[in-house]
Amino acid sequence: MRFARLDRPGAEVPVLLDGDRAFALRPLIAELAGIADDPAARLDLDGAFLAAGGLRAARDAHAAGRLPELDRAGLRVGAPIARPSAVYCIGMNYAAHAAESGAEPPAEPVVFMKAPNTIVGPDDAVAIPRGSAKTDWEVELGLVIGSRTDTLDDPARARDHVAGYVVANDLSERDWQLGRVGGQWTLGKSAPGFCPLGPWLVPADAFDADDARLRSWVNGEPRQDSRTADLIFGIDRIVWELSRFLVLEPGDLVLTGTPEGVALSGRFPYLAPGDVVELEIDGLGRQRQEVIA
Amino acid sequence: MRFARLDRPGAEVPVLLDGDRAFALRPLIAELAGIADDPAARLDLDGAFLAAGGLRAARDAHAAGRLPELDRAGLRVGAPIARPSAVYCIGMNYAAHAAESGAEPPAEPVVFMKAPNTIVGPDDAVAIPRGSAKTDWEVELGLVIGSRTDTLDDPARARDHVAGYVVANDLSERDWQLGRVGGQWTLGKSAPGFCPLGPWLVPADAFDADDARLRSWVNGEPRQDSRTADLIFGIDRIVWELSRFLVLEPGDLVLTGTPEGVALSGRFPYLAPGDVVELEIDGLGRQRQEVIA
Repeated sequence: MRFARLDRPGAEVPVLLDGDRAFALRPLIAELAGIADDPAARLDLDGAFLAAGGLRAARDAHAAGRLPELDRAGLRVGAPIARPSAVYCIGMNYAAHAAESGAEPPAEPVVFMKAPNTIVGPDDAVAIPRGSAKTDWEVELGLVIGSRTDTLDDPARARDHVAGYVVANDLSERDWQLGRVGGQWTLGKSAPGFCPLGPWLVPADAFDADDARLRSWVNGEPRQDSRTADLIFGIDRIVWELSRFLVLEPGDLVLTGTPEGVALSGRFPYLAPGDVVELEIDGLGRQRQEVIA
Repeated sequence: MRFARLDRPGAEVPVLLDGDRAFALRPLIAELAGIADDPAARLDLDGAFLAAGGLRAARDAHAAGRLPELDRAGLRVGAPIARPSAVYCIGMNYAAHAAESGAEPPAEPVVFMKAPNTIVGPDDAVAIPRGSAKTDWEVELGLVIGSRTDTLDDPARARDHVAGYVVANDLSERDWQLGRVGGQWTLGKSAPGFCPLGPWLVPADAFDADDARLRSWVNGEPRQDSRTADLIFGIDRIVWELSRFLVLEPGDLVLTGTPEGVALSGRFPYLAPGDVVELEIDGLGRQRQEVIA
């Protein structure tokens, strides 16, 4: 059972996917929110829905045959969650990637933020930003927060706050990330379209986040191929650590870091118009982006 | 003419202030949005309202006597804008502050992000985060974006995209900002309540952002006292620079940097429970926060 959002940018409709069939979630979302399913109402796969136990309710409703089927033919696949209040990213979280970036494996999670308006659909074209010479790919396991998370005492409670998982491409402009005065990474992570997300949100209880294979390809050639078992800081530590410094909100996105095999390593060229980037995490689906000028 | 949001956290109502009198904006916001003034509708001083020319429309409506007066007696002052999609901050943007922080004046703007859920009212108590030894104040001029800003060709067009200005306290935990592996500042800027904002949003055409005096005090003793004329990178450069790397959205908040006189300098103690912090920018109003454990 997977969740997705289909249709044009800015007009995506949330659905439950059962095989190739799509079932509309808006009536259920309205029901959970206690409001009418008005076309003008903001009824989305967002933090409010997740915090209300929407994923479980949707599966129950579908099992009871209560979700109306939706004809998905020809509909674009959008990001599987509404725009979050924040996107937190963990840097250098695979030892081999830290090494290819010229850094030691960090002794604690490195945390930075990415502009939330970078989120786009998994197959939307990636535009090289004007003036960029070093646009790079990064396949990452993303986790979506399901409930308010503030100052957890115990990492063992962290998983209770994760609603589900997604594939993300944490696109990065390396000169802007690493070459600027002050050493802050945000500018190199926040260009328009720099966070293809999806295709699916998979509920946390339906995915083994601790040993998933994640891969990327450019023009069909393998680039990254690792497993989340190699994360330096795993899901529990990441969520617990963030909760000590800030408040995670339902619907927030946390990108857990990328493994080795990016262009920054010097082993592969940076992205150029005409390239095709593909990313996949077993169980979470596959992205395919054409690179344009 | 100033704008504010009054009442309890999460239930603030947007108003136009004329002297001490408050006039409700919700009917006008509904009118501009073309929807009914339903209590359940999200009608706020947000990006959609700003992008629709709401500040100008509100002044016109008030001049025509069309805004209903609202009894503000006893109402808390909230942040003057709804939660933005992002908060961008400029670091080390006053030469004397860079020096007291042990850094050279930067040759280009240093940009980082702060979690948007840090925004609170200007007089809300500041809680020292658990485990913090170095909670510091920073008075800053904040600018609020009025229209989508993407890849400006000319800094001279930047000001067209600024809707108005606010006072901000860019509270910072210095160990978490500066003492962590990887050198990213976000964790030290994003604790709950770390962005008191307001009391007012003052429209851009009613405020001289290029030479405003900004000051702070702790327990009545002066701490910071500078002018925005001393900004290394001024408003035009900041907005133009950001627009080259990311897309600013209506309602987004940009904090322009803090002048010298913070605890990080070593000249003053960090904040402790019982302290009172005050911040003021001439023309934008004054904040007062009690520090609690």
